[in-house]
Amino acid sequence: MALDKEEMSEKVLAIAEALLNEGGADNLKARTIAKQAGISVGSVYNLFADLDEVHRAVNMRLLDRLGATGIAAMADLERQGVTDVRHRILAMAAAYVRFVEAHPGSWPAVLAFNRRRATRPGPDAYDALLDALFDIVAGVLKAGDFDLDDDCRALAARTLWSSVHGIVTSGYVANSNSRQAEEIWHQVELLVGVFVKGLEHGGAFAHAGTKPV
Amino acid sequence: MALDKEEMSEKVLAIAEALLNEGGADNLKARTIAKQAGISVGSVYNLFADLDEVHRAVNMRLLDRLGATGIAAMADLERQGVTDVRHRILAMAAAYVRFVEAHPGSWPAVLAFNRRRATRPGPDAYDALLDALFDIVAGVLKAGDFDLDDDCRALAARTLWSSVHGIVTSGYVANSNSRQAEEIWHQVELLVGVFVKGLEHGGAFAHAGTKPV
Repeated sequence: MALDKEEMSEKVLAIAEALLNEGGADNLKARTIAKQAGISVGSVYNLFADLDEVHRAVNMRLLDRLGATGIAAMADLERQGVTDVRHRILAMAAAYVRFVEAHPGSWPAVLAFNRRRATRPGPDAYDALLDALFDIVAGVLKAGDFDLDDDCRALAARTLWSSVHGIVTSGYVANSNSRQAEEIWHQVELLVGVFVKGLEHGGAFAHAGTKPV
Repeated sequence: MALDKEEMSEKVLAIAEALLNEGGADNLKARTIAKQAGISVGSVYNLFADLDEVHRAVNMRLLDRLGATGIAAMADLERQGVTDVRHRILAMAAAYVRFVEAHPGSWPAVLAFNRRRATRPGPDAYDALLDALFDIVAGVLKAGDFDLDDDCRALAARTLWSSVHGIVTSGYVANSNSRQAEEIWHQVELLVGVFVKGLEHGGAFAHAGTKPV
């Protein structure tokens, strides 16, 4: 029995995700997708307007999955009765590290896609997914009672995320003398420990009055 | 008059840097370099063992330049009598942001190169250059009187750097509702303010006893 439209879309997206993971956006070709799905190139374009739409749909699946991972990590800690903010942020960071490792090609492709679309009009369903991810982090920070207003807490959540992202992906840590995974985790621990301590002591307001350089 | 060997090496590296900046490592081809330099492909390989060596030499020039930028930023502040650690780290971060903007293709290529060589034996002149960059940040932290030992201070310097790097390069901040450069700078200010405050309050020791996840 032939697949219906929704099943075929799923099949196309699974193939596209594997292609992105193997070789990034350059590896995403309608002909390869069609061949692997056993359909014509025209059929791919009946399902998705263009390859950008395919990539966008793959990214939304990945962002959904990352969000589910973060929420699951938080639920785990809640079951264990862990409410400490530092521990909760570390658990989220650990979930992110594992997610990046599990998606060596497709995750950098999500980020590259986001950078390319930076000038597009929004907000839309895609932006809403990104914001939902930041909201998970902001929710943990809210439990910390740091006396931040919503804007500042959202900025702190984005800053933490970018920083952990930088630690996970930076080429700097690739020192031949150190073991990469260990170095990454030491940096994450130091960042989260220092960041939470800084928030506890009002560090988020230290920049008031700083002249932009 | 023909260029001598050193002058020709310089010419080859300038061409290679431009190629890397335009299209990353994939764009670095011996034939293109030879053509633009007006020499044979064989002559390129008389100067450098292989393209990896060319890339490595370009990277060392870039790392040198980045180090000089950081040192110049510190000297500027010293002349102005600014000794505040937060201001000095912010000035270094600003210098890094400008450097990344000025090298949109060649800088990501440095990082990708570093990741590829992560398993190589070392240390060597290349590692020494990377370490020298971290030492500049560690030197600023030392002035902060945070009661850190050398290892912890070096880890804090690498962590700060990775974090700023993540903020500058993360695709997450590319929200259509915000202006990219402004968002980056707000995140850097928050990070540095919170991080310094956290160090002042012993946050670097918060992770003692944390079970690695």
